[in-house]
This record gives sequence, structure tokens and C-alpha cells, in this order.
Amino acid sequence: MHFADRINESVQSKKSVLCLGLDPHWDSIPNFLKKDCTPDEALLKFFIPIIDACEQHVACVKPQIAFFEQFGSIGYSAFEKVCMYAKSKNLPVIVDAKRGDIGSTAAAYAEAFLGKNRPYDALTINPYMGEDTLLPFVEVAKQNEKGLFVLVKTSNAGSGDLQDLPIGDELVCERVARMVSRIGLGDLNSSQFSSVGAVVGATYPEDLSLLRRDMPSQIFLIPGYGAQGGKAEDLKSAFYDDAKGGIVNSSRGILFAYQNENEPEKFAEHAENAAKKAKKDLNFF
Amino acid sequence: MHFADRINESVQSKKSVLCLGLDPHWDSIPNFLKKDCTPDEALLKFFIPIIDACEQHVACVKPQIAFFEQFGSIGYSAFEKVCMYAKSKNLPVIVDAKRGDIGSTAAAYAEAFLGKNRPYDALTINPYMGEDTLLPFVEVAKQNEKGLFVLVKTSNAGSGDLQDLPIGDELVCERVARMVSRIGLGDLNSSQFSSVGAVVGATYPEDLSLLRRDMPSQIFLIPGYGAQGGKAEDLKSAFYDDAKGGIVNSSRGILFAYQNENEPEKFAEHAENAAKKAKKDLNFF
Repeated sequence: MHFADRINESVQSKKSVLCLGLDPHWDSIPNFLKKDCTPDEALLKFFIPIIDACEQHVACVKPQIAFFEQFGSIGYSAFEKVCMYAKSKNLPVIVDAKRGDIGSTAAAYAEAFLGKNRPYDALTINPYMGEDTLLPFVEVAKQNEKGLFVLVKTSNAGSGDLQDLPIGDELVCERVARMVSRIGLGDLNSSQFSSVGAVVGATYPEDLSLLRRDMPSQIFLIPGYGAQGGKAEDLKSAFYDDAKGGIVNSSRGILFAYQNENEPEKFAEHAENAAKKAKKDLNFF
Repeated sequence: MHFADRINESVQSKKSVLCLGLDPHWDSIPNFLKKDCTPDEALLKFFIPIIDACEQHVACVKPQIAFFEQFGSIGYSAFEKVCMYAKSKNLPVIVDAKRGDIGSTAAAYAEAFLGKNRPYDALTINPYMGEDTLLPFVEVAKQNEKGLFVLVKTSNAGSGDLQDLPIGDELVCERVARMVSRIGLGDLNSSQFSSVGAVVGATYPEDLSLLRRDMPSQIFLIPGYGAQGGKAEDLKSAFYDDAKGGIVNSSRGILFAYQNENEPEKFAEHAENAAKKAKKDLNFF
């Protein structure tokens, strides 16, 4: 099934545009889970109940690989297991790794994260090195019915340093948006959504509408909602009817909701409640 | 020891600016090494003799993590072992991973690749997301006497798509160069070299001189020499007296030199000869 169909179907069946970010900030994982075990075991003890508790309320998950890589190969192995578990629950898995490199190296990353039998559905990639560094990813994604999300306008405070520089009468991020739109044309589904999506931050709502014009066929992966400050009402302009065309990520606000109540043993229950609340808040149907 | 001192010392003691790129293109690894073993074992069987054969001729090594990641966690484990082996030979290890992300995520990547007890000396990073995404790396590098190489102007044909866009009277890559120069000022060694270096491709020699003006304190990591077409004579302008201020990467031209002679069993010997030849070709002392 085309990647855009998988995402749309999941959004419709869950009635949720919520993407659950799996960002295991080590210090925020309840201490009792870390006792008498290795870090990779603790990561699984944290994420399996979280996924079980949240699966009905989220359209997909987005593991942030950095928090696994910090534990080296054992963290990488935990990353693989967490992704396989999410896949077993039929949740599309978007690997947030922001990879990017020249031709043959890009092809190796594409194989790593978009290979046919890997437990991943999509990958975030970085456009700084140019269009020829994105194309090997696009080719593999198309071949294997996987997806991509190219960084266009990110949610951090300094995103404008490069992304908002003016090139004549457009901004760098608009130039990137047009590139993404163009390279995505080769793999559209029957509703004209591309397997090549875009990352556009919730923290710059005016850019969301602007960039939607430049990228009509892209699924937007929208980070920055919740803990980072983005508000639901500001995101609506990115969506088509029936909440099509976007997913909104929340990580810390859900994973570590237990901290507000100081009830670490009930971390999964608090995550579920936070996911339900975010799902309702993001009701663009 | 400050990262820039480690690099300079290694360049001077080996009388070589050559950086050996460890890019295990799977199809180019001799078949006899891949027989009756797992991919991670084959990677070690390839790299240990290569490092042994080349260590006297190269200033440092640069493993390209993508070619390890394509094998998942077992590839990642081979990556760690190859890096530890290079460290045991006193070779600085520059991890070519081109990571980049927002604050806490950047900090996790920094811990992964610049952590105190990791067998790595430096990491390549991508500036597209802005200065605030580079600073967590800079902080950890400074703390742990490790180094960074920020992508400024890459060696691929499409690098100009973004990097050469004109912002008023400068180019995007010049803007990035000035940012790199500025954030590198906080960690200079006694010869005014920074722990924050820059990636500038050998394939754009005119940019090398231009960007050297914008980045006087940066060590340049120069890819694109050899197999990609960059010539030694074109690179001299990036170097200071005594071949200070830069390292030149070569990967395929050395690793797979055995292919020219069709003598796979002698892959290490051919790599050594190719490394010797490149070292001599790049004699900027």
C-alpha cells in the first residue's frame, strides 16, 4: 500500500492526527524502570506499556533515534525492537533520524531505514546538501512503498537562521518546499498525496499556510505542538477536509505526563490520558 | 589534548594530510571475506588489515556510519569495534554521520558521538536547522576535547542547490561559514585553530580559497579528492604553512584499490600502496 494511503487510513481509523514521538529522554524515564537492568531493557520496559496504552489514540509513532544512539549498539538494538513492537500493532513508524548524504551514502541510509523488510515506514531527511542527495531516498521509498519527510521549516527558535534567509522574493524554506513538491510528483497516491512529505513546525503557524500553497501534495509532519508551544487552532490551515494531509507530533507532553502528577508507576496511564486529550484537541475532522 | 592539537600532531608525525575514509560499500568488499560469516564479521575482516596497512600513511580515519547502519544494530556494533581498533592505533576517528537536530536531541547525538569515553574524536554535523541546533554539539565537544566538522560546502554536484543561493551579496555557504567561524571562537588552541571545523569539498577549489577567508581558524575536512575528481594542486590554497589547517579524505580510491589489479586477496597491500601514493600527492609540507 502507498505510504500516503497507510497514513491516511490510520488517521481515519483512529480519528486522530496525533503522531506519538518516542523520545526517551533518559532522565525522564521513571527510575523504577531503570533498576537492575541494562539501558536497552529499560527502554523496552518503558515503551511497550506506552505503546499498548496509546495505540488506539495515535495515527503513528515517530521514534527519535538520537536517544537510542546515545547508548551505542545496544541502544540501536532497543530502537529496532521498539519499532518492531509498534509495527506489530499496525502503527506506521516514522524514523526521525534527519539523515542526508551524497549518492551512494544516501543509498546506504535508504537501505537502513526504507529497506523492504525493515520495521520502518518512513524517514526524516535533511535537504542542505541538495536535490541529488534526496533522490536516492525518493527512489528507494517509491520502490518499497515507504515515505519520506524532508525538513523544510523546523520548529526550533533558530530555524530561521538559514531557512528564512531571503533569496530574491522567496525564502530558503520556500525554495526547499518547491524542490520537495517537485521531487514528490513522481509518487502520488490516488488522492494526489505524495510519499515525499515535509516537516513544518507548529511554532510558525503563518509558515504552515504559506508552505501549504507551495506543497499541495505533501503530508506535513508537524513537530512543536504541546511542550514546544504550538497550539492546535494554529495548525488547522495545514489540513484538508477530513483531517487529511498532516500529522502532529507530540513527545514529551505524552510520554512524561506522569511527572505532572508525580506518579511514576502510572506512567502508561498518564500517557494514555495525555494522548486522548491531545487527540481531542487536534480534532480537525 | 585539544582536538586541533591532536589533528595537527598526527598530520606532522605522519607527514600526511590524508584522512582515510572507512566507507564499506558492501558490493566492493572482496567476496572471500564475506564467506561463512555475518556482515559485521566481514566488516572487521576487511578493516583491521586495512588499518594495519595504512596507519603509517594517514593522519586520521573517517568512518561513514551509513554503510554500517545499513546492517542495523549488528552493523552499529561493527562500527564501534572498527573505531576502537583505529583508536588503539592512535588514529583520530572522525565519525561521518552528518547529524543535526534541536536542543535536547542534539545533546543526545553529542553524547553518542562526542561523549567522554567513546572511541570517537569528532563528528560531522549539518547546519540546516540553525545555530541553536549546533551549540549543544559545540558545548560537549569543548567539554570533552573533541571536534566537529560542520557541513559548509559539500562535494556533490547538487551542493549548490541550497549552498550557493545568493543572500544579498553573499552565498548561503558563506553565511554558514561565518556562523561556523563565530561559534568556533570559544574553543581555540594555542595556534588559533578551533575544535569546530568545516567540511568544504575538493570539487569546488575556488570556494576553498573564498571560504578560507571566512573561516581562518577552522580545520577543513576536504572530501571529494580522488575518486570524486578533486585534484591535489587545487587544494593547496586551503592550507597554511607546514600543511596545517586541513585534512583531505579519500575512501574508495584507497579501500578498493585492489579492484584495479583484480587481486582481492591483496586488498590490504593495494590499499597501502594507494595510501602512500595519495600521501605523496598531497604533500603540502
